[in-house]
Amino acid sequence: MVLSPQLTQFFSQVEQNKQGYIERLTDAVAIPSVSGDPSHRQDVVRMGEYLQQQLKELGASVEIRDPGVQDWNGTGRILQLPPVILATVGTDPKKKTVLVYGHYDVQPALKEDGWNTDPFTLVLDEANDKLIGRGSTDDKGPILGWINVVEAHKQLNIELPVNIKFCLEGMEESGSEGLEKIIHDEAQGYFKDVSAVCISDNYWLGTEKPCLTYGLRGCVYYHITVSGPAADLHSGVFGGTVHEPMIDLAHLLSKLVEPNGKILIPGIYDNVAPVTDKERKTYENLSFDLQDLTNSVGNTINLHSNVEATLQHRWRFPSLSLHGVEGAFYNPGDKTVIPAKVKGKFSIRTVPDMDNDEITRLVKDYVTSEFKKLNSKNTCTVELTHGGDHWLASPDHWNYVAAAKAVEDVFGVQPDLTREGCSIPITLTFQEALNKNVLLLPMGRSDDGAHSINEKLNISNYINGTKLLGAYLYQVANAQ
Amino acid sequence: MVLSPQLTQFFSQVEQNKQGYIERLTDAVAIPSVSGDPSHRQDVVRMGEYLQQQLKELGASVEIRDPGVQDWNGTGRILQLPPVILATVGTDPKKKTVLVYGHYDVQPALKEDGWNTDPFTLVLDEANDKLIGRGSTDDKGPILGWINVVEAHKQLNIELPVNIKFCLEGMEESGSEGLEKIIHDEAQGYFKDVSAVCISDNYWLGTEKPCLTYGLRGCVYYHITVSGPAADLHSGVFGGTVHEPMIDLAHLLSKLVEPNGKILIPGIYDNVAPVTDKERKTYENLSFDLQDLTNSVGNTINLHSNVEATLQHRWRFPSLSLHGVEGAFYNPGDKTVIPAKVKGKFSIRTVPDMDNDEITRLVKDYVTSEFKKLNSKNTCTVELTHGGDHWLASPDHWNYVAAAKAVEDVFGVQPDLTREGCSIPITLTFQEALNKNVLLLPMGRSDDGAHSINEKLNISNYINGTKLLGAYLYQVANAQ
Repeated sequence: MVLSPQLTQFFSQVEQNKQGYIERLTDAVAIPSVSGDPSHRQDVVRMGEYLQQQLKELGASVEIRDPGVQDWNGTGRILQLPPVILATVGTDPKKKTVLVYGHYDVQPALKEDGWNTDPFTLVLDEANDKLIGRGSTDDKGPILGWINVVEAHKQLNIELPVNIKFCLEGMEESGSEGLEKIIHDEAQGYFKDVSAVCISDNYWLGTEKPCLTYGLRGCVYYHITVSGPAADLHSGVFGGTVHEPMIDLAHLLSKLVEPNGKILIPGIYDNVAPVTDKERKTYENLSFDLQDLTNSVGNTINLHSNVEATLQHRWRFPSLSLHGVEGAFYNPGDKTVIPAKVKGKFSIRTVPDMDNDEITRLVKDYVTSEFKKLNSKNTCTVELTHGGDHWLASPDHWNYVAAAKAVEDVFGVQPDLTREGCSIPITLTFQEALNKNVLLLPMGRSDDGAHSINEKLNISNYINGTKLLGAYLYQVANAQ
Repeated sequence: MVLSPQLTQFFSQVEQNKQGYIERLTDAVAIPSVSGDPSHRQDVVRMGEYLQQQLKELGASVEIRDPGVQDWNGTGRILQLPPVILATVGTDPKKKTVLVYGHYDVQPALKEDGWNTDPFTLVLDEANDKLIGRGSTDDKGPILGWINVVEAHKQLNIELPVNIKFCLEGMEESGSEGLEKIIHDEAQGYFKDVSAVCISDNYWLGTEKPCLTYGLRGCVYYHITVSGPAADLHSGVFGGTVHEPMIDLAHLLSKLVEPNGKILIPGIYDNVAPVTDKERKTYENLSFDLQDLTNSVGNTINLHSNVEATLQHRWRFPSLSLHGVEGAFYNPGDKTVIPAKVKGKFSIRTVPDMDNDEITRLVKDYVTSEFKKLNSKNTCTVELTHGGDHWLASPDHWNYVAAAKAVEDVFGVQPDLTREGCSIPITLTFQEALNKNVLLLPMGRSDDGAHSINEKLNISNYINGTKLLGAYLYQVANAQ
């Protein structure tokens, strides 16, 4: 493959800047912008100010939007939310405009959690190709990757091939409070000219090959509540004489899903889109094997015997998980209680073309009918407590084609085409509000430990990731 | 019925002493002898000293035994246990000797729990025939009942018809720590000459008629542990690809017992003693109806449609209760977790002639075989965490016959013959250590709220209960 002169020049500049990029990430990681801890709220704000300063120095025009306040964990403690940063680099109406999303807050981290080093001091481990620190991969590395791209072009004194609009938030790790409204409000405002969206906030499928992610499962969460006595009872006095809610609930939970993963709710699979031949081909040659599952789970408990079935059940088939029971005895030790009211909690991961309302109807009908079969005098209710839709983009869209070409430019391989089993709600928000193609283009690897101890970003992923983001902009500019 | 001159004289003395008895209970309730709260440990000791003083003033010879120390809730905080009080009134070798057990500690109580009055200030509510205060019925009223009997005889300057040996502990509400060893140690020592045991620490079946209690169910407690992943997993990422421990556990729990109470473990009912005709007669004319069950449960969720079946399933048939799950999500709200390791907790109430070891074998075999059917790659273990045997005395024993006659002497009715569904471990300890008949002879009513707010003892139960304990001693003396 022959690279264009601009890309050659850009890649070379990135290589030269390596030390500076690492210093920039060091500065960013040093700000403990933990959005879930009120005592760090000012650090989140400070991290936002750091990014605004960097963007302004590179010539971006920067605005902020106020997401308002939050009632912290429903405690009545009112906290100001950190600003959403909107920044523009380039306004050439002849160029495409890419909306770049990222978040500048991080997960909590304490040395005592088991970190080998101080989480907020970036450790450069060249021998192992690692940059270790909280936020290195989630999501400061990727945000700085974009800033690195802009900086390299300024240093080279060449224009970016596209306009960039940044949307950077400081509450992603705490539910993105206030962001959805701002996106909808600005859809026909600040984001009016956006051609496509690029989000770099997930991970490669494995550790060796980049991927483009084009789908996410949805999630519907239910509580089954079984109530009987007015208060908890002593099992010695009442055991054998009354209908026990926990017994009824155990029977209901056992009716939801088989140990082999098959969901037992009638009709649940009816609208699941079949696997097409074209889709099946995307499962060939993926950077994944069953040992990867075993490694991440820590035990060999796979339901499926091959990679294709495993990943299809993670990405594009529904699953039902039992999360727990509220109201029953949960402490260590023994307690001879008959719990008066128990809530069984489960959720279903949904996929195209399942419809949340229809699923809720099926769930309620089924649980109600199974409860009737128990002939219990207790009462049973089923409640949807949370619902988020699945998301699917077309990997044939020019936004994806451009990203795939950029991967080839930088890595010399075709990317894995992946989906994810969990939801990233902001993806759906962007697609719905802007009605533009959204691309998930990760920088880090599957073993980065984003929400865990010793979070890392490989140095090569940071540097090549910066190249990738730049190359992607050139491919977007060339896309038809 | 014609009462003996001694009983007539004794009853009359009790009536005269009514005011003094209430004052004595007022003094006792005022000492907050909460054994479960270390800050009240000295009050428990003080309550013991109060009883020793009372007994000494009445001419008893009093000794104490040191149960040692406890590690409070496993916290490493070492607390001295309150003494076990051994007291003797009368040593006439020609008389029978009755061992009287009681406990001088109480359950915790705070006004803020919902009490209408200060829990440690005895309230005399003559209009409603009530003495309200913590410990009034459990178990200070009954202990003082015995002391009242001794006092009345001293006042009348007549000898008791039997010798009494007291065994009073201060840790009953906190597991009777240290007592079992003392009973075994003294079986051939202090308790050598005991003819029979009388414990007044349970309650009438209803609110209108005294009862004698001759049986208790046992209890075997089990944990089923299902383990899979090395740590909790995210259901978005892993749902549908791995065997989930909570799903396996729900299936296992549903296999233990039907919603109608029928235990599904094969062989579990094989050794349950059949109901004899004689036993069936004891269920006639009991002071209990189904509304009593509904009232105490706070809802109409009875499994059985008549009193006989209901009480038989409480007293003399086994039951299986599901208590809860450790390791799963138990908080309010939603969490999309796949718990890595879950423990399902259940217990079986056992009855004659079930054998604990045999039951444990049946439980383990059955759960293991049901788990195999699930074809899961998770692991499953079953563990017995607690086992206590059932207890059954013969209501034909002279000790019971004497108590039944005493009930007729005081109340003019035949007592209910009852059993209880829960265990009172000390009962079994006395029977095993001393190999003597043990009688449960309650003073209070079923609605006394022993462990609840506004605990009370009816004035009439306190006064007639004192008469009953005295009359019982005379009937014991006369028994063949």
